[in-house]
Amino acid sequence: MLNDTAPSAPARRDGLTIRRLLESPVARDPAQEIVYRDLRRHTYADLEQRIHRLAGALAALGVKPGDTVGVMDWDSHRYLEAFFAVPMMGAVLHTINVRLSPEQILYTIEHAGDDVLLVHSDFLPVLETIRGRIDTVRAFVVLTDDGAPGSHTVRFAGEYEALLAAAPERFPFPELDEDTRATTFYTTGTTGLPKGVWFTHRQLVLHTLGTLATLATAHHASFRRGDVYMPITPMFHVHAWGLPYIATALGVKQVYPGRYAPDVLLGLIAREGVTFSHCVPTILHMLLRTPGGEAVDLSRWKVLVGGAALPKPLALAALARGIDVVVGYGMSETCPVLTIAHLDPADLAGPAEAQAELRTRTGRALPLVDLRVVGDELAELPADGRATGEIVVRAPWLTAGYLKEEKASEKLWEGGVLHTGDVAWRDARGYVKIVDRRKDVIKVGGEWVSSLELEDVLAAHPAVAEVAVIGRPDPKWGERPLALVVARAGDPAPDERTLHAHVKGYVEKGVLGRQALLLEVKGVDAIDRTSVGKVNKRALREKHL
Amino acid sequence: MLNDTAPSAPARRDGLTIRRLLESPVARDPAQEIVYRDLRRHTYADLEQRIHRLAGALAALGVKPGDTVGVMDWDSHRYLEAFFAVPMMGAVLHTINVRLSPEQILYTIEHAGDDVLLVHSDFLPVLETIRGRIDTVRAFVVLTDDGAPGSHTVRFAGEYEALLAAAPERFPFPELDEDTRATTFYTTGTTGLPKGVWFTHRQLVLHTLGTLATLATAHHASFRRGDVYMPITPMFHVHAWGLPYIATALGVKQVYPGRYAPDVLLGLIAREGVTFSHCVPTILHMLLRTPGGEAVDLSRWKVLVGGAALPKPLALAALARGIDVVVGYGMSETCPVLTIAHLDPADLAGPAEAQAELRTRTGRALPLVDLRVVGDELAELPADGRATGEIVVRAPWLTAGYLKEEKASEKLWEGGVLHTGDVAWRDARGYVKIVDRRKDVIKVGGEWVSSLELEDVLAAHPAVAEVAVIGRPDPKWGERPLALVVARAGDPAPDERTLHAHVKGYVEKGVLGRQALLLEVKGVDAIDRTSVGKVNKRALREKHL
Repeated sequence: MLNDTAPSAPARRDGLTIRRLLESPVARDPAQEIVYRDLRRHTYADLEQRIHRLAGALAALGVKPGDTVGVMDWDSHRYLEAFFAVPMMGAVLHTINVRLSPEQILYTIEHAGDDVLLVHSDFLPVLETIRGRIDTVRAFVVLTDDGAPGSHTVRFAGEYEALLAAAPERFPFPELDEDTRATTFYTTGTTGLPKGVWFTHRQLVLHTLGTLATLATAHHASFRRGDVYMPITPMFHVHAWGLPYIATALGVKQVYPGRYAPDVLLGLIAREGVTFSHCVPTILHMLLRTPGGEAVDLSRWKVLVGGAALPKPLALAALARGIDVVVGYGMSETCPVLTIAHLDPADLAGPAEAQAELRTRTGRALPLVDLRVVGDELAELPADGRATGEIVVRAPWLTAGYLKEEKASEKLWEGGVLHTGDVAWRDARGYVKIVDRRKDVIKVGGEWVSSLELEDVLAAHPAVAEVAVIGRPDPKWGERPLALVVARAGDPAPDERTLHAHVKGYVEKGVLGRQALLLEVKGVDAIDRTSVGKVNKRALREKHL
Repeated sequence: MLNDTAPSAPARRDGLTIRRLLESPVARDPAQEIVYRDLRRHTYADLEQRIHRLAGALAALGVKPGDTVGVMDWDSHRYLEAFFAVPMMGAVLHTINVRLSPEQILYTIEHAGDDVLLVHSDFLPVLETIRGRIDTVRAFVVLTDDGAPGSHTVRFAGEYEALLAAAPERFPFPELDEDTRATTFYTTGTTGLPKGVWFTHRQLVLHTLGTLATLATAHHASFRRGDVYMPITPMFHVHAWGLPYIATALGVKQVYPGRYAPDVLLGLIAREGVTFSHCVPTILHMLLRTPGGEAVDLSRWKVLVGGAALPKPLALAALARGIDVVVGYGMSETCPVLTIAHLDPADLAGPAEAQAELRTRTGRALPLVDLRVVGDELAELPADGRATGEIVVRAPWLTAGYLKEEKASEKLWEGGVLHTGDVAWRDARGYVKIVDRRKDVIKVGGEWVSSLELEDVLAAHPAVAEVAVIGRPDPKWGERPLALVVARAGDPAPDERTLHAHVKGYVEKGVLGRQALLLEVKGVDAIDRTSVGKVNKRALREKHL
């Protein structure tokens, strides 16, 4: 008999909206704390009140459902309030990347169509330089830590705290469709203009539940009730990886550090008893090397690391300090979390070196994440720890596309799966390890050779100071690897034969495929890098091919 | 600027389907175990294969998307396979309540429109009595533990294991809309025919994530990776409270006990190292009193108790055995879990008596559950631990209604919220405590008096053997409480004055409201009960009013 049940009446199909993440913790833990540096502490009950007041204040400035509210702030209690209030109104939160150039910031404000802008006084100098060219913004609100924004010429509709104080206690938040857009922010590639990605209420709620299900159930580096949370990836960057929503849903104590300064961060960890954070490897490195930082007990600290590969020596240094460090993986387009490299109990009983090998992998797929490593025509590759291909994903929390960029969106979603552009292998236990970016991988005789792996091997040769490997078109092989090598000061440049012999050893050990033996070598004076210090392979290809 | 983002392309909006719950654990823990009594153990990799084969076998019997597959089995690995395979095909799993009378079972099979029936050989005698009147079923499959169904006259399409062995290794599961119906089963009230409720893929996935988020993050009685799971509420009853889906998503070892027998259950707990179960109070009581059971170490066992109020003495007895016992609440219409009574760390440090008080409460609302205690016109009552009203809920996992019962569905969802029919108060920490069923509550002068609380107080009087309290219509008060009292054998029936004096003490202590003093008393010989031993207030009202 065919399924003859009528579809759910709309009223009975309860939507996945951000508002729902707030209700349970406020009812359960109204006295739980939210801390901002050493400047402010209040409760979840206050948080809820302030969210209502912020919505009221924004509505008084004309913000309606479908409008966009941009925020330029360091990580703060205010930002957390905006994470909830703006989407709960049916408006879109634009988390502005304050590290972009003023021109790029201007571009993202105009492209997102920000109607109201909340700006911390630290960013007034930037705002002053672009204000005359901002067309969309109807009202500016200034955020300060002391109520005094300093000297400036911007005409503000008001100061954040004053507007909240003047707003009504309750705001009548509307019932929203779960597919309503909640947030937008911009990714920065190595080329071209920033691209906007966007997420719906449904996607953010499901990302919260899926990531929480993984973090809470893990054998280590877990995130649960009783933890104390502090973000150390900016809230403008993929919603601080979505963790502020998770922390709030959990009802844990939250600590917001403002602008990142090593001594402030370490002080907050010590004083507030922070147990769970997330950061990029650079920040972890910086915190471990901060003078005087050795005195801070980090043995209860759990850190999710992402944004770039975590070097094994850094993981070992963190473990030596007692930090429970683990890698997570995702990107702006994926909300972001797709995998976490949690260990199983047997691994946790093993030596640090073996643990670091697993902890620095890309990780294992979260529940509801359909992650595949694929070759040509999206054919799934065996999970044998060797076969490398592109990571493609489906999950209920991936951006539907780039804002107003249909062509780029279609490319991102080619074949109905989201293309990460990352090349990886997977092993029999489900651990994925990224070995390259797809655009940097070299295709030799139909096999993919990781430029990053080859670079690692070549860099281990004593005569090599710096090296970058790119693919050189070849009529027979399709491509052959070309190593651009900077010799160590005072040494002669190592020749092709020397490096071949070096590479051969790794091929024989099975570390590299035989395709690596097709390596060509060219001595260069320097390796081109981007403004943030990454190897600029595009520039290298233009120069050397 | 209005939100000008195009809606997600369908391919980019990833559905919440049951299939997704299976992918991550199979990739991560392919060697994890699934155990059936002492008869069988296999892995998650086997589970996935057997799900494919079961789907293939059912398809060969003609099962198509939209069809219904009924199952009559004890808790088994087979049932777990059906939990996944049938919905993943786009068909509906009807979990038949084998405790109903043969006539009721016949009614539910016909009402659900079962197309294929999987029947354990233990239920062949029942099937034989109704088979001639089953119109909808096209094929019967017999389930046995030893391949030998015994003597019977039913013509089976085959035996479960044989059909699986003959089926292809892979089944091409279709992409499904998340609102596709996945399961259906029947609730049994005290009156009338069983009513069917039904759940979609989306609802079951969200129930899994929401309940897991609560169980995994709790300070005690948690459910996480590393636990060993065994259900002790039947899989035909609200999907064994949804826990088999949660256990599978977690990738933990699962133990299925078949037909419940105290020695088998205790043996499995001891032998397989079971750490997490769920059951009704009666089962817990039975296990604690099983002769020889004292020898089993239960100090690592966590038990979620629901289905009926957990008496405090039973909670204390469980705590004394080292069992981490906690109450959960829900109903057939709610998938089921709505609340769990987990304790905070400060409570866990307190004495057993105080813990038992909290552990036996109804609990605190799960994330995404909008639970309100309301009075007239759905107005929310203060969370003061006193004001009592009906629990109404919204959540993304509530049934949209009763199958083919539009009128009853509308009543269930009156005013856009699901009416639980339970009367409760809530305190400032969010703990809810049910004090009565709505239909049994007595409304005196506009205030609700709990018949259950009044019965508890009266039962404490030494001359009272049994008591039931109902509401008697009263021109002045609306209703007055009428106590029907059975005197203790040999004693004279306690008169109204005696019981008034007794009740007055509790009113003065604040345990009962003053309305309780309007109590009337009537001596009776016996209290009418239903076939399962519950007080039959409907019969009492008919007889005594």
